[in-house]
Amino acid sequence: MLSFENDYSCGATPEILARLAQTNETRFPGYGSDSMCEQAKAKIREACAAPDADVWFLVGGTQTNQTVIDSITPQYAGVVAALSGHVNVHEAGAIEASGHKVLALPHHNGKINADELDAYCATFYADDNYEHMVFPGSVYVSQATEYGTLYTKAELERLAEVAHRYDMPLFVDGARLGYALTAEGNDITLEDLARIADVFYIGGTKVGALFGEAVVFTHHGKFSDTPKHFLTLVKQHGALLAKGWLLGLQFDTLFTDNLYCRIAGNANRQADRIRAALRDKGYQLTFDAPTNQVFVTLDQPTIDRLSRNVRMGFMEKADDTHTVMRFCTSWYTTDEQTDALIALL
Amino acid sequence: MLSFENDYSCGATPEILARLAQTNETRFPGYGSDSMCEQAKAKIREACAAPDADVWFLVGGTQTNQTVIDSITPQYAGVVAALSGHVNVHEAGAIEASGHKVLALPHHNGKINADELDAYCATFYADDNYEHMVFPGSVYVSQATEYGTLYTKAELERLAEVAHRYDMPLFVDGARLGYALTAEGNDITLEDLARIADVFYIGGTKVGALFGEAVVFTHHGKFSDTPKHFLTLVKQHGALLAKGWLLGLQFDTLFTDNLYCRIAGNANRQADRIRAALRDKGYQLTFDAPTNQVFVTLDQPTIDRLSRNVRMGFMEKADDTHTVMRFCTSWYTTDEQTDALIALL
Amino acid sequence: MLSFENDYSCGATPEILARLAQTNETRFPGYGSDSMCEQAKAKIREACAAPDADVWFLVGGTQTNQTVIDSITPQYAGVVAALSGHVNVHEAGAIEASGHKVLALPHHNGKINADELDAYCATFYADDNYEHMVFPGSVYVSQATEYGTLYTKAELERLAEVAHRYDMPLFVDGARLGYALTAEGNDITLEDLARIADVFYIGGTKVGALFGEAVVFTHHGKFSDTPKHFLTLVKQHGALLAKGWLLGLQFDTLFTDNLYCRIAGNANRQADRIRAALRDKGYQLTFDAPTNQVFVTLDQPTIDRLSRNVRMGFMEKADDTHTVMRFCTSWYTTDEQTDALIALL
Amino acid sequence: MLSFENDYSCGATPEILARLAQTNETRFPGYGSDSMCEQAKAKIREACAAPDADVWFLVGGTQTNQTVIDSITPQYAGVVAALSGHVNVHEAGAIEASGHKVLALPHHNGKINADELDAYCATFYADDNYEHMVFPGSVYVSQATEYGTLYTKAELERLAEVAHRYDMPLFVDGARLGYALTAEGNDITLEDLARIADVFYIGGTKVGALFGEAVVFTHHGKFSDTPKHFLTLVKQHGALLAKGWLLGLQFDTLFTDNLYCRIAGNANRQADRIRAALRDKGYQLTFDAPTNQVFVTLDQPTIDRLSRNVRMGFMEKADDTHTVMRFCTSWYTTDEQTDALIALL
Repeated sequence: MLSFENDYSCGATPEILARLAQTNETRFPGYGSDSMCEQAKAKIREACAAPDADVWFLVGGTQTNQTVIDSITPQYAGVVAALSGHVNVHEAGAIEASGHKVLALPHHNGKINADELDAYCATFYADDNYEHMVFPGSVYVSQATEYGTLYTKAELERLAEVAHRYDMPLFVDGARLGYALTAEGNDITLEDLARIADVFYIGGTKVGALFGEAVVFTHHGKFSDTPKHFLTLVKQHGALLAKGWLLGLQFDTLFTDNLYCRIAGNANRQADRIRAALRDKGYQLTFDAPTNQVFVTLDQPTIDRLSRNVRMGFMEKADDTHTVMRFCTSWYTTDEQTDALIALL
Repeated sequence: MLSFENDYSCGATPEILARLAQTNETRFPGYGSDSMCEQAKAKIREACAAPDADVWFLVGGTQTNQTVIDSITPQYAGVVAALSGHVNVHEAGAIEASGHKVLALPHHNGKINADELDAYCATFYADDNYEHMVFPGSVYVSQATEYGTLYTKAELERLAEVAHRYDMPLFVDGARLGYALTAEGNDITLEDLARIADVFYIGGTKVGALFGEAVVFTHHGKFSDTPKHFLTLVKQHGALLAKGWLLGLQFDTLFTDNLYCRIAGNANRQADRIRAALRDKGYQLTFDAPTNQVFVTLDQPTIDRLSRNVRMGFMEKADDTHTVMRFCTSWYTTDEQTDALIALL
Repeated sequence: MLSFENDYSCGATPEILARLAQTNETRFPGYGSDSMCEQAKAKIREACAAPDADVWFLVGGTQTNQTVIDSITPQYAGVVAALSGHVNVHEAGAIEASGHKVLALPHHNGKINADELDAYCATFYADDNYEHMVFPGSVYVSQATEYGTLYTKAELERLAEVAHRYDMPLFVDGARLGYALTAEGNDITLEDLARIADVFYIGGTKVGALFGEAVVFTHHGKFSDTPKHFLTLVKQHGALLAKGWLLGLQFDTLFTDNLYCRIAGNANRQADRIRAALRDKGYQLTFDAPTNQVFVTLDQPTIDRLSRNVRMGFMEKADDTHTVMRFCTSWYTTDEQTDALIALL
Repeated sequence: MLSFENDYSCGATPEILARLAQTNETRFPGYGSDSMCEQAKAKIREACAAPDADVWFLVGGTQTNQTVIDSITPQYAGVVAALSGHVNVHEAGAIEASGHKVLALPHHNGKINADELDAYCATFYADDNYEHMVFPGSVYVSQATEYGTLYTKAELERLAEVAHRYDMPLFVDGARLGYALTAEGNDITLEDLARIADVFYIGGTKVGALFGEAVVFTHHGKFSDTPKHFLTLVKQHGALLAKGWLLGLQFDTLFTDNLYCRIAGNANRQADRIRAALRDKGYQLTFDAPTNQVFVTLDQPTIDRLSRNVRMGFMEKADDTHTVMRFCTSWYTTDEQTDALIALL
């Protein structure tokens, strides 16, 4: 069975497994207060060219989104996100469970638009009754988005500008950041991100690690400082790992010799090959996206036929007879697997 | 200054003030455990022809919506409501503050559609990932709606049928129920409501009382029982009044000799007169609604002119030069005030 | 039946009822944005000799405690309170429902001790694991306490000093403040309270009003400013009244010609008479307290005998054969009622 | 530096590392829906002799406590726990952050007493005001406790009996269950636990795994069923791992050939040796406990001297000159390390 259903179906990069084996008997202090975490944080700060940034390692994506959003969003406010944003759709209500409304903006292939954000906020504050409504209190975007698309540097800068104008930090969910950084046409580097965003995270779960996300508070402006007693907040939200060095170890490995981007690039290359094959064979790509997620609108007989040999992701019904499906590559997808998939198309 | 900005700008019916004066020195036990509350509950059960119904008196509308929705909606679920629903727009995030997402459906002049509810739920359960999403856990509608429109009996029955099919109670916000019950063309009586809805409330704040809403758990089916230890939940959500008999007294008065509907009818009559005048004078009514809220799309010069003598409600920008405004009548609007408004139009 | 079971068993002072009648037909804007509220706030600021103070009117005590505590206590922190504090015992878990632990200190006839608070905080910060624990984030005391006792000015100043040293605001629950201000031996005036506390409230429900509490953010130091967008927080916590002028009207009346303290004094006088009678007749007063709550330890036959004619409050079992009971007087207790009670003792 | 500061300072058992390496390139479906998890669940059910039990794998201890307690405790209720319970002291307020009060009972070397639980509940329901208080809604105990002590089978059965009588499930935190099962004098087997408790968990983080806890809903009575849509609740509370098979793999390994108990036994043996040495050398053991935590009251010079070579845990100040310290052994503690510690004592 070919596995293209998601990008977290496999263990970790061999380098991480090797480090786990090497350090397995070493004694470390708990909760991230170890030297491995310090070392990884230093490497991430360096990769971000952000010596003042504050780095934290959390267990997974939903935990990170919940912890960060609940920490940076005022109690009287919600978080603005795309209608298609992970926090709005696929996190089991974790944001609302921590007390905040997700204020959903229309999405454009997964992205929100700075002008629409501006208009939303302007309309909000122009409403006589705004004190009875949920304030826009922070802005959440994903890079790459849930549809595999990318914000350009200009778009992200404009979003930050609008967010800050309305007193909101800009938070970038980087669960798939590796695939964004290495995509063809991407113009946002880690340094850019650390300069533009107030807080973002570098996804490990989907890019080479067994699990883990590295949260970066960028400390470059009034919205980008670490929330007070953040460790306590991380623990309260279920995002703290007892054996914290396991997270430090993984990110230290991923940020040694640029491993993170090297392995991420593979996913995009495999996805590009699938996209090319689909186009060649006359399939209809649902969205034009440069990263590791390939969306294609298929009819039911094709889905049935492929499903005998390939695990794909269900996205949504397109119409009565067609469905949007997703082929998802990852850092671990091999040429052979992609060849096999293409042969089946 | 003429006051048409809302329906809660005035004290209570004289009958209530008189009862307050008569009983002011009487000693009552606290928190609704008094004979006045018992008497009012009996009258409401009778008016609903629902001898098994369980009636509670809460302080206000937002408190009631938060308490009821948080009590009837499972922890893993959200409440389905119209995009324009009060709980989605104008309650300061009280629903999310108690942990639940509002799952917003499109509205049609304030109403949701049973077929769209059905489709929403069917799509939800057809999604392979639904366990990672927010379950539809209860359904909230307002009668009259925030746009002054009404559900028909057939529409409400159909909503209840769909809700129950997907294991959801149907909750009807009756903050303006009096204006619904007495509107021209309305075909839903209190008895119908008690038979169709699982839980609803009879608004006092906007219909004759100083404050207070009467929640009715209808106890006619598997979704309509009172949540366990509801008094504790009411208190926890800030909706319990120490001097509970003040609520009993008001509802006892309103449900004596049909006072509730008698005073509500006045608001609709005044609104009908305003609507007729607007039509006569060539204004554009924004929605066709039979209750006490009159929505009209005005240009800015007209708004400026009227604002010198009339307090109206801002609804939303219609376009660059027009705004949807609201004239709101109430049980206390007099013929003279309406005459004066009409003269200004 | 004599009513000594609590201090909220009766309506409002006649002056308030008269004002309600006078203004019943006046139109007011909603949610406290009216002139009556402005006028009442000015009088309270004057009574507090605190021209910069910010005054808000909320519906009831539990709502006020929940709203204020959740607004002033950091997310990573709890509120320190006496084990016997109302928020720890009798508010249905409203504080925890809004996410905060109540950090209970031992009480001494209802009071906490500044040295014990200091020791608690010192121990907390001396613990290597304090980031895994709940930070002390605010301090809650009641004046008068739940046992009718009073903090002295020196005690309250010392509590504020310790609280501030550990970065905590001091919040004073004044549900029974009138009975404190007018008690024999009390040395804390409203001016003192506004100077010492960061935020406190003046109870209306138990002292002359139908309902309502006046919250005062004292704006005299770094812990005493109003939380941002407090109206939104008040609404979110179920503490906002639509017809807000009803609260303004009541507090305006209570703070005209010192009515608040005049009526409160009566409760203490009646309680003093009951205490004297109990002592004369050889009963054992459980606590020595100067305000309107009289605690006495009774055997069961006495309880049974009195219960035929008097409603009292149950406090707790003292031992197998004795129970601590409470006689509670109020602003409305008459000499005749007290005479009748004394005759029964 | 000798490491005796806790039992989670080292990686995983070599068997687990080997399995990680073997399966690293295998593709698995996400979120625990894989065959490895199924296999591990079957082994746990067998070890518990509980074929109907429902097993779930969560990321860590605090996440598990928060998720389970919030899922089994009614909204109007709190969780009863020892004053020294982990959920009451060392989880950053995670229980309160999810809305529930921890109702703390006195502890006896870490244990609560069934008679005191009974008395607490009886007093609660005997209080006239109990509807205004926080209901006891579930019972939490740890086996082994935070002080390393153990409940006997009779004690646990009696706790379950009392809990059920008051409509509460009994939840056993087994973060250190391995050390309990293998302690000298322990009389509670896994089978017993699955028969007595309603829900419990088998700790992996502290007993051989990199991370992870196995929650067992025992499905033997009216309080022991899995909460509806538990996966959604697990995700909402931040306790779900994307690569769920990593948890299945670890528990499958630990429950193959009784590995879990075999490695746990080592910790107890090392602790017994330390306890014997301490007694021999005249130290004062603070508590008498048979598991892997050794509590000893030391004076400051001794602490200073030992701290140069040993990492220990701070527990609490005993008096001005003495402190309770903890030596914690684990499955990975070697004879050589224990020898070295003993030599230093």
